[in-house]
Amino acid sequence: MNSYTDKPKRTITRREALAGLAGSVAVGAVGATLENVEAATTEANMEYTVDVVIVGAGASGLMAAHNLKKAGHRVAILEANDRVGGRLKRGEIAGQVIDLGGQWVGPTQTRLLELAASFGMKTYPTFITGKTIAEISGKVTPYRGALPPLQMKSSTELFKLMGGMSRDAETINAKAPWEAKDAARWDSMTVATWAREITSDSAAQDFVRVIIQAVCSVDPEQISYLQWLFYIRSAGNLNQLIDTAGGAQQDLYVGGLHQVCTHLAKSLGDDLVLGCPVRAIEQDDNGVTVHGDKGTWHAKRVVITVPPPTASRIEYSPGLPYQRAGLTQRMPMGTVIKCFLAYDKPFWREDGLNGQAVSTTAEFGAFFDITNPNNPHGLLTGFFDGGPAQRWADRTPDERQKQVIKDVTRMLGRKAKKPIDYVEQNWPREQWSIGGYTSIPGPGVLTHFGEGLVKPCGRIHWAGTETSDVWSGYVEGALLSGDRVAKEVQDILKG
Amino acid sequence: MNSYTDKPKRTITRREALAGLAGSVAVGAVGATLENVEAATTEANMEYTVDVVIVGAGASGLMAAHNLKKAGHRVAILEANDRVGGRLKRGEIAGQVIDLGGQWVGPTQTRLLELAASFGMKTYPTFITGKTIAEISGKVTPYRGALPPLQMKSSTELFKLMGGMSRDAETINAKAPWEAKDAARWDSMTVATWAREITSDSAAQDFVRVIIQAVCSVDPEQISYLQWLFYIRSAGNLNQLIDTAGGAQQDLYVGGLHQVCTHLAKSLGDDLVLGCPVRAIEQDDNGVTVHGDKGTWHAKRVVITVPPPTASRIEYSPGLPYQRAGLTQRMPMGTVIKCFLAYDKPFWREDGLNGQAVSTTAEFGAFFDITNPNNPHGLLTGFFDGGPAQRWADRTPDERQKQVIKDVTRMLGRKAKKPIDYVEQNWPREQWSIGGYTSIPGPGVLTHFGEGLVKPCGRIHWAGTETSDVWSGYVEGALLSGDRVAKEVQDILKG
Repeated sequence: MNSYTDKPKRTITRREALAGLAGSVAVGAVGATLENVEAATTEANMEYTVDVVIVGAGASGLMAAHNLKKAGHRVAILEANDRVGGRLKRGEIAGQVIDLGGQWVGPTQTRLLELAASFGMKTYPTFITGKTIAEISGKVTPYRGALPPLQMKSSTELFKLMGGMSRDAETINAKAPWEAKDAARWDSMTVATWAREITSDSAAQDFVRVIIQAVCSVDPEQISYLQWLFYIRSAGNLNQLIDTAGGAQQDLYVGGLHQVCTHLAKSLGDDLVLGCPVRAIEQDDNGVTVHGDKGTWHAKRVVITVPPPTASRIEYSPGLPYQRAGLTQRMPMGTVIKCFLAYDKPFWREDGLNGQAVSTTAEFGAFFDITNPNNPHGLLTGFFDGGPAQRWADRTPDERQKQVIKDVTRMLGRKAKKPIDYVEQNWPREQWSIGGYTSIPGPGVLTHFGEGLVKPCGRIHWAGTETSDVWSGYVEGALLSGDRVAKEVQDILKG
Repeated sequence: MNSYTDKPKRTITRREALAGLAGSVAVGAVGATLENVEAATTEANMEYTVDVVIVGAGASGLMAAHNLKKAGHRVAILEANDRVGGRLKRGEIAGQVIDLGGQWVGPTQTRLLELAASFGMKTYPTFITGKTIAEISGKVTPYRGALPPLQMKSSTELFKLMGGMSRDAETINAKAPWEAKDAARWDSMTVATWAREITSDSAAQDFVRVIIQAVCSVDPEQISYLQWLFYIRSAGNLNQLIDTAGGAQQDLYVGGLHQVCTHLAKSLGDDLVLGCPVRAIEQDDNGVTVHGDKGTWHAKRVVITVPPPTASRIEYSPGLPYQRAGLTQRMPMGTVIKCFLAYDKPFWREDGLNGQAVSTTAEFGAFFDITNPNNPHGLLTGFFDGGPAQRWADRTPDERQKQVIKDVTRMLGRKAKKPIDYVEQNWPREQWSIGGYTSIPGPGVLTHFGEGLVKPCGRIHWAGTETSDVWSGYVEGALLSGDRVAKEVQDILKG
């Protein structure tokens, strides 16, 4: 309840500017002038006309705006936060820049690799030399290889599970997962149900839990099996999702992945408006009108790139089709709290460890060595993911820090007890992202509402990583969705 | 896409009043006065101080406001729509008043019975004399009795399913379903999964589908089995949910159930503000401030009674705990389209039918005879519920009417082809209710977020039928939640 005893600290919103105006009017009789009134309301009442408004300045929105502007269209990109990046965010620990959100790039994420390279950004590999730690039912074991050291029978069952989901994913068309032959059945159950139907081995089931939590930041009880198959398919295959070398966790960016957004933002100049939540969107035969806290924009088309549940908070007139409005009621964000520990040096390496760990019982269930090769300090980053994050999101940073150190110490030894710095990012409490990494539907959503993810609603077009059929949920998917929606809108504006 | 080519028709909102103001300011140089400006902004900028603000004037909000006012507290009740009632709504067909939303009352719904009686409202029984129609796999069969005429083996399996869910529901504490011994397992699966684990008989499974659709307006693939058990338990037992005589569909109100809301509203006078969506709520040590389209209210406490997904669209400062904010991302409204047919007379009665029907294959899957005994016209009402409603919500009223008549004609015969009137209510397209009857979570929500339904967040208290442990999802639950929250707030204001 602590958070309620603090006075709310907010920047001035249109609402408050308006309240200020009311004050001016009230004292009008004793000397207010029209100039006072005008000053108080100018910003909120400015009207602008562009070709395309883009809502949200994360990777997808910035990419879309960049492309549309380059093609000669007048754009405005409106961002609720006072920064760009969305689920990419700059942070610092022990004097080093870090990514509080998305940070990795994998070898098949070619759009991101190409774009970052064009900005001169350099990568370095996630450290993988040495043994990984597995904590299974409370027992800590260092191991090498792709899969953790389970007992023979459980290993066999885990292979059966991973083989089964891989085979099922191969039958999916990532552009329309609801068209798969078994889509109705797969969307009628959670991943937990599916795993229990394949095996009763609880150690194998526990590892499916760890995978779902680490990859989707939900529990296997909270995700449709069809959504999971779509996710695998959109990444290429299961290894792409879970691997470090060769997979989505292969490389990090010197200075941080979030820089792709600040670089993209530079090309947009004054077309980017920060601190401007969009409250309402109206459309008719003549165009679309977007009402934000810093003005009103008239345009031919609007592109909405914010996560589906955030998009549901905008007031649309006329109301959206139910295929879309019902969808956004059913696409909750996953739950992830990302934590960083800095040490004098990466001490675990001296013990033959690579600083990676995975646990079936810890609250802080997975972490990685992201030490920058040009810095002597050792850096670990890891996650409260899914259920654990849902349990820990409302506790204090101090409580979480204690838990993180406790879990890491159990796995890496007592040298882990004394970090020189701790930093965390509690994504579910971010006002506009309201979670991370991505929106994850439960059963019965994709088959009934899936088409609403991408299908335009009149003059409203949809982007964001959730809408991508390639690397959905990743920065790569966000950028590709920006490319796709820019082309979608350009084709219409040309026609 | 038709809906996008119409010009949006809306009443003037604060936003537009503000735009009007901007116009005044712009022409200020050529003669605008402060009076112009004041007139344009007065309403939106009025400030009020009360003890308690209630958000939403459905049954729960009206009940809470009524109780608090009666106890001597100053209240304001803010309603987004231009009418009271929420999911209760007045309609007309062939000159008769009907309920476009909730309409029935059952014998154990004593709070509603007592309240309606205090307003002089009279009930009449749903007509049940004669045979019910069952359409099973395309075959139409009249039958008598509680359960439809399945083949012997399927009947046995259906009893097994109904017995199983009834037994499981008995172990539930409706105040905390997540505490049940098997809660984790039950919340890991959909009702569809559970039914498939009990039986492979598809005819029996089809009837579970019909029950879930009719009672919860979702498909069995879209609802957590734990939520279903909670729903059964909160109604008392399974028969209470599905029965006409003796159950929740026993009686109707002459002149309509929605009258409880208009009667309650009378006692509130000017404390009720219609057409006033609430946009933002701020709280601190000193109190709570509620920003609506028709003013700003300062209060000691605020009670939010709107459905959870609608509540998620208000901007809270400071942000809500994740237990609540995460919950409202995961409580979609069910999907129901309620349709009415009026005939010269209730012709089906001459054929020995009671006008009730249930179908495992029709889009318009269940309907009832609600003919008013004092009116010669025959009246049927029924539902597109769950999946069928999700398929039909974006079609035109004409298309739905054709489908309704087609389905009813197949079940009641060709006399059904020529109704004298047709009326419908498409709940998923209602701007503020955004669906019906109630919010239904999928798997993995109650066990992780369930406590957030009722637990106050600082000065914010929660009501609405979803928060009731008795008759959740029904008007009875809404009224009881209004009583409960009024007492909760009174106890604090006294203390």
